[in-house]
Amino acid sequence: MKKDLQPIFYPRSAAVLGAGDAPEKVGFNIFESMVYGGFKGPLYPIHPKLKNILGYDVYPRLDKVPGPVDVAVIALNQFNTVDVIEECARCGVKGIVSVAGGFGEMGAEGVKLEKRLSEKANELGIPLIGPNTLGFINNDGNFYATFYPLRLIKGGVSIISQSGGMGLTIMQKALDEMMGLNKWIGVGNRATLEFYDFLAYLGDDPTTKVIGVFMEGSEEALKFVKLIREICLKKPVVVFKAGRTKESDYLSMTHTGSLAGPYRLYKDILRQCGAIVVDTVEELVACCKALSLSQLPEGKRVGVFTHTAGPSIVAADYMLQLGCELPKYAPETDQKVLDVVGPNPPIVLKNPLDAAGLGFPAIPYGRMADAVLGDPSVDIMLAIYCLHKNWRFPSWEIIDVRNKWNKPAVAYYVSNVGDSAKDREMLQKEGVPLYITAREAARAVYALYEYKQIISSQAKG
Amino acid sequence: MKKDLQPIFYPRSAAVLGAGDAPEKVGFNIFESMVYGGFKGPLYPIHPKLKNILGYDVYPRLDKVPGPVDVAVIALNQFNTVDVIEECARCGVKGIVSVAGGFGEMGAEGVKLEKRLSEKANELGIPLIGPNTLGFINNDGNFYATFYPLRLIKGGVSIISQSGGMGLTIMQKALDEMMGLNKWIGVGNRATLEFYDFLAYLGDDPTTKVIGVFMEGSEEALKFVKLIREICLKKPVVVFKAGRTKESDYLSMTHTGSLAGPYRLYKDILRQCGAIVVDTVEELVACCKALSLSQLPEGKRVGVFTHTAGPSIVAADYMLQLGCELPKYAPETDQKVLDVVGPNPPIVLKNPLDAAGLGFPAIPYGRMADAVLGDPSVDIMLAIYCLHKNWRFPSWEIIDVRNKWNKPAVAYYVSNVGDSAKDREMLQKEGVPLYITAREAARAVYALYEYKQIISSQAKG
Repeated sequence: MKKDLQPIFYPRSAAVLGAGDAPEKVGFNIFESMVYGGFKGPLYPIHPKLKNILGYDVYPRLDKVPGPVDVAVIALNQFNTVDVIEECARCGVKGIVSVAGGFGEMGAEGVKLEKRLSEKANELGIPLIGPNTLGFINNDGNFYATFYPLRLIKGGVSIISQSGGMGLTIMQKALDEMMGLNKWIGVGNRATLEFYDFLAYLGDDPTTKVIGVFMEGSEEALKFVKLIREICLKKPVVVFKAGRTKESDYLSMTHTGSLAGPYRLYKDILRQCGAIVVDTVEELVACCKALSLSQLPEGKRVGVFTHTAGPSIVAADYMLQLGCELPKYAPETDQKVLDVVGPNPPIVLKNPLDAAGLGFPAIPYGRMADAVLGDPSVDIMLAIYCLHKNWRFPSWEIIDVRNKWNKPAVAYYVSNVGDSAKDREMLQKEGVPLYITAREAARAVYALYEYKQIISSQAKG
Repeated sequence: MKKDLQPIFYPRSAAVLGAGDAPEKVGFNIFESMVYGGFKGPLYPIHPKLKNILGYDVYPRLDKVPGPVDVAVIALNQFNTVDVIEECARCGVKGIVSVAGGFGEMGAEGVKLEKRLSEKANELGIPLIGPNTLGFINNDGNFYATFYPLRLIKGGVSIISQSGGMGLTIMQKALDEMMGLNKWIGVGNRATLEFYDFLAYLGDDPTTKVIGVFMEGSEEALKFVKLIREICLKKPVVVFKAGRTKESDYLSMTHTGSLAGPYRLYKDILRQCGAIVVDTVEELVACCKALSLSQLPEGKRVGVFTHTAGPSIVAADYMLQLGCELPKYAPETDQKVLDVVGPNPPIVLKNPLDAAGLGFPAIPYGRMADAVLGDPSVDIMLAIYCLHKNWRFPSWEIIDVRNKWNKPAVAYYVSNVGDSAKDREMLQKEGVPLYITAREAARAVYALYEYKQIISSQAKG
C-alpha cells in the first residue's frame, strides 16, 4: 500500500516544535532553514516562552497556531517527541519529521521508545520521517525541513540517504558538480516510513528524473529491490551500499539498528533488479548527474577524443573494466581528421584519437570531435581536454557536435573544480555532463549505457 | 650509474629554441611559463627573425647568446629537434628538454628518429628529458620548463609522470587539495632518461620529501623497482600504475612505445619493493599529501571520532578493507566522553565514537577528540566533521589535541572544496591533512601506517 507523502513534501504550512533562538541549537537551525529555503506558506515556530524568532511570531503550543498545519517538524528530545505525537494528531497534522536521536540506535531502552513512537504514529495514521535524521529538503517546493541547510541547485535528481552525514556528503558533491537536486531525504531510523515508501513516492513524483540511494541495510530489503525493478523502467535508480566488511556491518547495525547484510549478495541482487550500483559517493553523483542531463547511447561503443594521451588511457582503462567497447574508427573518420591536421601529422589514428599538440585550439578540436562522434560505430563520445591558461575550453564545439549528431557526449576536463565552473554550467545546461576525474567520467559513460540496457532488458523480461 | 641532473633542475640560465610570440603555440607558452614561474637567471628566447618576446631580447641562434646556457628547451618539430642537438653541445648546454611529438609513439619512422635523437644526446653526454613531454617544473627553484604553466604551491612532494595529461591531472588535484609540490616531471618518451634516473635524482634531492609516480609501463621495470627498494627507506614512493586490461596495455604501448605489462603482477612487485600502490589520481594525491604533512603512527589502530555516523561507517569500511583496525576504547576514554556530554547522552560509546547532536560545537568536539586520541590503544585519529553554516569547523581543537598527544591526526570534513579552503590551510600548515571524501581520508590514514611498516620491515630485511 502506497502512503500519501504529498502533504509532507508539498505542505501548505509547517510548524517547528521546539524552535529556538540559539544558533548552536537544532531547534533554531531547522526554523532558520525553512525561512532560508524560501518556503512560501505560513511557518509557525512553537516554544513555550519565546515571542519571536527571526521576525516570526512564536506560539506556545501547536493548538494555538492560527491556521492548519500540514507538517510538524519536531525538534524536541526523544522523550518529548513521543509525548507530542498525539497533540499533532489532534491538530490535524498530516506528516511529521522527527530529528531527535536516542531511539533504536541506542540499545534496548531506545528500541522500546522507538517502538512506542512508531506505534503511536501508525495508530494515528500520520506518516513520520525519522527519528534520528537531518530531515529532508524538497528543493522543487522550496521546503527545507532540515537543520543542515545548503542552498541546492534545482534539478531532477532526488536522493534517499540512510545517513544524514552521507546525505550531506552527496549534497556537497552535488554542489561541486553543479548537479541539480529535486528532493533530498534523510530516512533516519525508519520508524514508520521505510526506504521503499520513499522510493515509491519518488518513483511517482513527476519532477524526479533520477533517484540516488545511499543505504547501509534494511530489514525489508526484498520489498525494496522488487520496487526498484518496477521503478527502473520509469527512471534510473542509482545505489551506493555501504558495509563491505563484517565489522562495518556491525557498525551499521549500531548506527541504525539494521543489519547490513553481505555486501556482494546485496550488490548482485540490486543489479539484477535494475539498479545501477556504485562504490563511492563520487560515483553516485557522477552517475546521477549524467542520467539526469544526458540522452542515452544506443550501445556501449565509446569514441574517445583527446589531445593528451594519459587521461584517455586511464579513462579507457576504467571504461573497459566496466564493460564499454572502444571501436576502431572508420576510414572516413580518419580522413576527416587528416583534413583538419594535414598529412603526416604527429598523431596516431586510433581510438582514443589523440590529437596531441594539434588539438589545443578549440576550433580544430571541434572539427575532430565532429569526426569522432559522427563515426557510424560510435554510440557516445568522451571528449577530453586539458585546461590551459591561454586557450579556452572547447565547450561550444562539443555542444555543437552533440547537437549535430544527436548522440550523447560526456566531457572530461583536466582542471580543478573552480577553473571549470563556467564551462560546467554551459555544458550541463546543454545536456553534456562535465567531470574532472577519469574515474567519474568513465563511470558516468558506462551508467548511460547501463541504463539503456536496463530499460531494454527489463522491458523484455 | 647516476646521471647528474642537477644542472637541468637548477640551471643558472636557460634558452628556448623555437620561442615564439603566438599565444596559441607551444614555443610562446614555454617561454612565458619560464617568466611566469619567476626564474631568476638569464632567459634567452631563440628565433631566427623575432626581436623581442615579452620584453626579452631574442637571439637568432644559440651561439649568439651573450652568456653560458645550462638548459636548452627545444620547442621545434621532431626533425629540427634532432638537428639542433649538436649545436647545443657546442654551446656547452648541460641539459635538454624536448617537447615535440612525432617520435617513438608514431610507429616505425618515429622509432628510427627517436633512436637518432637518443644516440646523439648520449654520444654528446647531454641528458635529455622527453621527447613528447609537457616538460618539467622545479617549483623549489622557480624553474617552469613546460608549456602548461600552473602556479603551484610550494612543498615537499615531487611527481614523476609518464603522461603529461595525467601529470597535469595530478597538479590540478594538488591545487584543490592545497598540496605543496616540489618538482614535477613529465618523462615523455624517455629517449635518454628513464623513470629510474628521475627516481634516483629525487631520491637524493634534499627538498623532496615524498615521491609520487604515475606510470603506464617501462622496459626497465626491474631496475625501477629495485631502486624503489632503496629509496623507500629514505622517503615514501607512491605509485599509480595504469593499464588494467589488455586493451589499455595496447593503448599505453601506442602512447609511449612501452609495453605496460600485467597490472596485478606489477602491483604485487611494487608493493614488495616498498612502494605504496594506489588506484586513482585522487588516492595518489591523498597519500602524498598525508605523507608529506603528517607524522607516522606507531601502528594501525585508528580512533574514529565523528558527530555523524554515516561518513564514519563509510570511512571505516574502506579502512578495514585496507587493513586498519578500529580498537575498542578504554573505560577511561568512555568516562572522559561522559564527562563532556553528561550521563545518558544519546550517543553510543564505541569506535567510531559518534557524538551525534552533542558534537556540533567545536569546544566539546575538541574535548571528545582529546579523549579519543589520548586512548592508549589509538595510534592515529580520523576526525570527521560536517560543515554547518552556523558552526565553525573544530580545526583549532584538532590541532591542539594532535599537539598534546603527539600522535597523528587526519581530518575528514564533509564539505565542498571551497567551503573548507581556510580550514584546510590552517590544518595542513600544522601537519593535519584534510580531506573531503571518505575514500581519500581512509586511504591517507592507511598510507601513513603502510609507510611506517615499510620502514620497519625493509630496515629489518
